[in-house]
Amino acid sequence: MSKLSDFFSRELPRINATLEQELAQLNPLVKEVGEHILLSGGKRLRPMLTILTARCLGYQDQDIYPLACSLEFLHSATLIHDDILDSADTRRGQTACHLAFGLHRTVLAGDALLALANLIVARYDIPAMNYCVAQAIMRTATGEVEEIAQIRSPRPDRTAYLEIIQGKTADLIRAACSCGAMLARADQERLDHADSFGFNVGMAFQLVDDALDYAADHELLGKPLGGDLREGKITLPLILYLQTLQKDQQGEILHKMAHDLLCDHEMQQIIGQIQEMGLDTKVREEAGKYLQLAGQALESFPDAPEKYLLQEIVEVVRSRKF
Amino acid sequence: MSKLSDFFSRELPRINATLEQELAQLNPLVKEVGEHILLSGGKRLRPMLTILTARCLGYQDQDIYPLACSLEFLHSATLIHDDILDSADTRRGQTACHLAFGLHRTVLAGDALLALANLIVARYDIPAMNYCVAQAIMRTATGEVEEIAQIRSPRPDRTAYLEIIQGKTADLIRAACSCGAMLARADQERLDHADSFGFNVGMAFQLVDDALDYAADHELLGKPLGGDLREGKITLPLILYLQTLQKDQQGEILHKMAHDLLCDHEMQQIIGQIQEMGLDTKVREEAGKYLQLAGQALESFPDAPEKYLLQEIVEVVRSRKF
Repeated sequence: MSKLSDFFSRELPRINATLEQELAQLNPLVKEVGEHILLSGGKRLRPMLTILTARCLGYQDQDIYPLACSLEFLHSATLIHDDILDSADTRRGQTACHLAFGLHRTVLAGDALLALANLIVARYDIPAMNYCVAQAIMRTATGEVEEIAQIRSPRPDRTAYLEIIQGKTADLIRAACSCGAMLARADQERLDHADSFGFNVGMAFQLVDDALDYAADHELLGKPLGGDLREGKITLPLILYLQTLQKDQQGEILHKMAHDLLCDHEMQQIIGQIQEMGLDTKVREEAGKYLQLAGQALESFPDAPEKYLLQEIVEVVRSRKF
Repeated sequence: MSKLSDFFSRELPRINATLEQELAQLNPLVKEVGEHILLSGGKRLRPMLTILTARCLGYQDQDIYPLACSLEFLHSATLIHDDILDSADTRRGQTACHLAFGLHRTVLAGDALLALANLIVARYDIPAMNYCVAQAIMRTATGEVEEIAQIRSPRPDRTAYLEIIQGKTADLIRAACSCGAMLARADQERLDHADSFGFNVGMAFQLVDDALDYAADHELLGKPLGGDLREGKITLPLILYLQTLQKDQQGEILHKMAHDLLCDHEMQQIIGQIQEMGLDTKVREEAGKYLQLAGQALESFPDAPEKYLLQEIVEVVRSRKF
């Protein structure tokens, strides 16, 4: 077993116990929704990053777990609001919350989970941490609004795409690392490096995710390829593909995407061509650039065992196959 | 013109200017939703209470406005999520946000407004204030979830009713007053009194609102009476009415409410009987008890001009006709 999976196995039960404990404070009607989304699995990447960053920077206290979990509460709140928006039927192999509990309870449970995250963070009495978390929520919501706007009028715009994935994914992962560093009372230089590490890992994570959506081993992925294309989401593999086409062909695909007119055959064709041209690999190379910056940000960190686990996370993100 | 309306006219432009200024930071897609709900009117009761409490307790700085507005942002976020839940068509005489901008953008804009409120509060570097605001959001969301659960299985339960109005209304008004006192660095006793003042004004405000829904001058109210009854909401006037009935009659009405089977004629009859029996007046008397406690909480406040304005607010809530 690698040292990282060893660490994950050791920390996972503590994280899950804390999640349960914090959820227990909620009104039963909200708690049920929270438990449905939170206790159904998940890699707990964000809490793990908070813990690793803080520990690496010298923080030893056991009171770290609620903070680490607050990032998971935020993440879950965005997932359940997001599932409503995507009209998703399932999440983590379970019925999506809005189908299990209705739209009303789900919207409000999301609000309560956002509030719970803020409440937990406020308990630590470190004002900058409250600011960091509030900003992460703001950016996540904004990233998702921008993504929806893109679906309505798709453009093969790389800058817009990068802004969207920063908002919807990277800024929360960045907050997870920054909060860990703040808890460890790191100096400004270390704070900046923790922030940069989180940002770059987050960007790479989403880029690899978007590459996998076109080219994963779909038996491992557990869902059909091309989900983003089907939902009308413009991600980097598709942007690279559209750039290889003539203007009129490009326009036709974008028009069909905007009006939900792409048939299954056309989608399969696009997926096939993206694979043939190796565009998913190109996207992974792009992710690699962010991961290099993440690695550089780590260099100034103290020579603690956690530093090597953070480096291992960089490699896991890089080589993820599903 | 009373001193209170004088104060409101003086402060309103400053509050509105700050709301616009803070909204300007948002992504245009979110900003548009925020402006729609926030710049379409509203009494700004919560910001006014923050300002009056802080000023009364000796706080003179001009930096109070963003804090005051953060409570209005929270309030608006709950309104737009609430309108989705109530399937409301209009709010403050305008098209409801979810109809104007779609469900997706509205849910996320609500999240962004919640985040904005947290961001603003975090800028003041007073951790207790972050906690207070996060708790208010949590309680508001919980109150609304409880209200929805009541609509599904209505019970004439006075305790449950009081819990719901505390959550959905009083706790945010209470936070408005508490934040003002925290900004003024009040001692614990004053903090407790500010908290108690806000809580009691908030409870009374909602009780009077619920009485008006059965017995306002509906031309002044600008909407038909009995909205709560139509939406299946069990409020105190109806609880008092149901208590005058035989068990079987009571059961019949509750059953019809739960299944949306009350016809217009039956609703008119219930409204008429509530008015005839003077049950709306009984509810106002109940509000009066809370207002007496609010008045008592004020007694320890310094003898500043704002103290008398806060007392005037108590009288305005008591005698509100629409």
